[in-house]
Amino acid sequence: MMSRSSAPEPVTEVIDLASAWLPGRMAEVERRLEAQVAGWGRQLGGDATETLAAGGKRMRPLLVLLCAGPGGTVSAIRAATAIELVHMATLVHDDVLDAAPLRRGLPTVVASSGRQRAVATGDLLFSRAFAELAAGDEGEGESAASRQVALLARASVALARGELAQRRDAYETGVTVGRYLDRCMLKTASLFECACVIGAERPAGEQKDLTAFGCDIGLAFQLLDDVLDVLGPPERTGKARGTDLLDGTVTLPFIHARERDPGLAELDLRALDPTSAGEVCDRIIATGAPDLVRLEARERVAGAKRRLRGSGVRESELELLELVADGVVERYS
Amino acid sequence: MMSRSSAPEPVTEVIDLASAWLPGRMAEVERRLEAQVAGWGRQLGGDATETLAAGGKRMRPLLVLLCAGPGGTVSAIRAATAIELVHMATLVHDDVLDAAPLRRGLPTVVASSGRQRAVATGDLLFSRAFAELAAGDEGEGESAASRQVALLARASVALARGELAQRRDAYETGVTVGRYLDRCMLKTASLFECACVIGAERPAGEQKDLTAFGCDIGLAFQLLDDVLDVLGPPERTGKARGTDLLDGTVTLPFIHARERDPGLAELDLRALDPTSAGEVCDRIIATGAPDLVRLEARERVAGAKRRLRGSGVRESELELLELVADGVVERYS
Repeated sequence: MMSRSSAPEPVTEVIDLASAWLPGRMAEVERRLEAQVAGWGRQLGGDATETLAAGGKRMRPLLVLLCAGPGGTVSAIRAATAIELVHMATLVHDDVLDAAPLRRGLPTVVASSGRQRAVATGDLLFSRAFAELAAGDEGEGESAASRQVALLARASVALARGELAQRRDAYETGVTVGRYLDRCMLKTASLFECACVIGAERPAGEQKDLTAFGCDIGLAFQLLDDVLDVLGPPERTGKARGTDLLDGTVTLPFIHARERDPGLAELDLRALDPTSAGEVCDRIIATGAPDLVRLEARERVAGAKRRLRGSGVRESELELLELVADGVVERYS
Repeated sequence: MMSRSSAPEPVTEVIDLASAWLPGRMAEVERRLEAQVAGWGRQLGGDATETLAAGGKRMRPLLVLLCAGPGGTVSAIRAATAIELVHMATLVHDDVLDAAPLRRGLPTVVASSGRQRAVATGDLLFSRAFAELAAGDEGEGESAASRQVALLARASVALARGELAQRRDAYETGVTVGRYLDRCMLKTASLFECACVIGAERPAGEQKDLTAFGCDIGLAFQLLDDVLDVLGPPERTGKARGTDLLDGTVTLPFIHARERDPGLAELDLRALDPTSAGEVCDRIIATGAPDLVRLEARERVAGAKRRLRGSGVRESELELLELVADGVVERYS
């Protein structure tokens, strides 16, 4: 391609490997996403289209299509579209909860259009996700659509529960590792798990292996996201350093740092401002905790890849999935 | 029954008429609602259970079951449960948007638990609605569940669009009747329409008649709700008089009153406080506009009943549906 970047983008690599079938399907997902957010009036059209255009890595749709494989049908494309719509809905609502000014370096819907429009926009995206799946019931076996709705609804419940759990733990500097991981499971890993099995029906064994794979890379993804919140830099993450702390969200880098710098546990997170939040990030970095969390994330990804090797998943798919797993790590290296 | 009330509750009357089959199914809906909101952790359990316990008329589930008829299956019960969950989700989110302190005379989730928990609670209720439908796919024909998901997703999209439209029109004292009715269609009538057809598959003609019926009584319901906001009294409505005006929501009583008291159009609704909002309500009442709107609502209900008489819907069902239609009016007489 025309890219001048010296290190190839892992996602591009995946697409090259599967170039006979994947790019066309990813483009179709993009077309469907555009169609789903268009035509709902000028205002929503604007909000949702901007959310869509702001991009994102489309990791979840990619996982859906890869796990469905070259033989995946339009039902996998629908599922990939729906899962990204749910993801987008969650982001829009999360930004309402956090009153976040920026996402991916651009103003959030709540910042540009207000809380009210943002809540309604999220609801609408969420509804469109289920509409996309249900519309797939004609012409290709009914139960696929219902199975997908059930999987996506379950993951959506988990996302909301994760958000609730995070609110419940807010400003709690003594939160445990177990509690943190539970939250990550609900908030992030559940949708990755869902992405790995929603695109195609598989034998129970493969399904179990792919669920475990999705869970591990979802957790790794969240761990690394939480590291980035501490490390920045803002021009790369698209948001200020210490944003989680300012929201009262205590993550694994903080939890590990707390062991080595117990004073952290005494902090009143409610009293933080952007400057002092940056200073807390520096204290966390000084303990070496972010490196430790990064290591945990990499080990989790490595474990996920190892387990997948021993599973029933086909060799050709394995390579692609491993590249996605590496992509989770590489983006943060 | 043991009721000492002299005027029978219309909804009770409906249930008496269908006493062989309806009460058991309504009780089953209630059980399923309780099961859906239970078990999601202490906090959410609390928020959602309170929302559920705060009651409501369960008009939408009642319509679902009635329109499905005595031959309705568990799929109708699931649909009745799901539609009420979506309705509850919408109420919780609407209260976030309006920062409403009270609903049905009790504190709202946003008032008692904060905006963040309320948004997540709404998302969760919403997800559970689709999960309830999708779980019905086993054992009784797959396409019913997908058809229901499609109908409910479409109605949910309409609800969100209605909310967005209302926000867009906020504080606009010159809003037109057409625009107001469009909003009511999206915000209220769409879910009533959905309730009338989601419980059972019917011949296209009957489906069309029931959709029109649902639309009309949904609109009448909203019109009368808007009249109540002007008239109160608070001890009956469970919220302060003029709440809509304080939110900037201009409704039909105001629109009609504006014709006779043009000064109303010059008001700056943003400057209202509860006292002056009550005074504006008095000005609206002085024009006779609320009576006019009530008349329109009754005519709409009467028309809905007439059209249903000429439709293919069975006589035994007609009577029950007419009682529900009357119930919409009676509650506000």
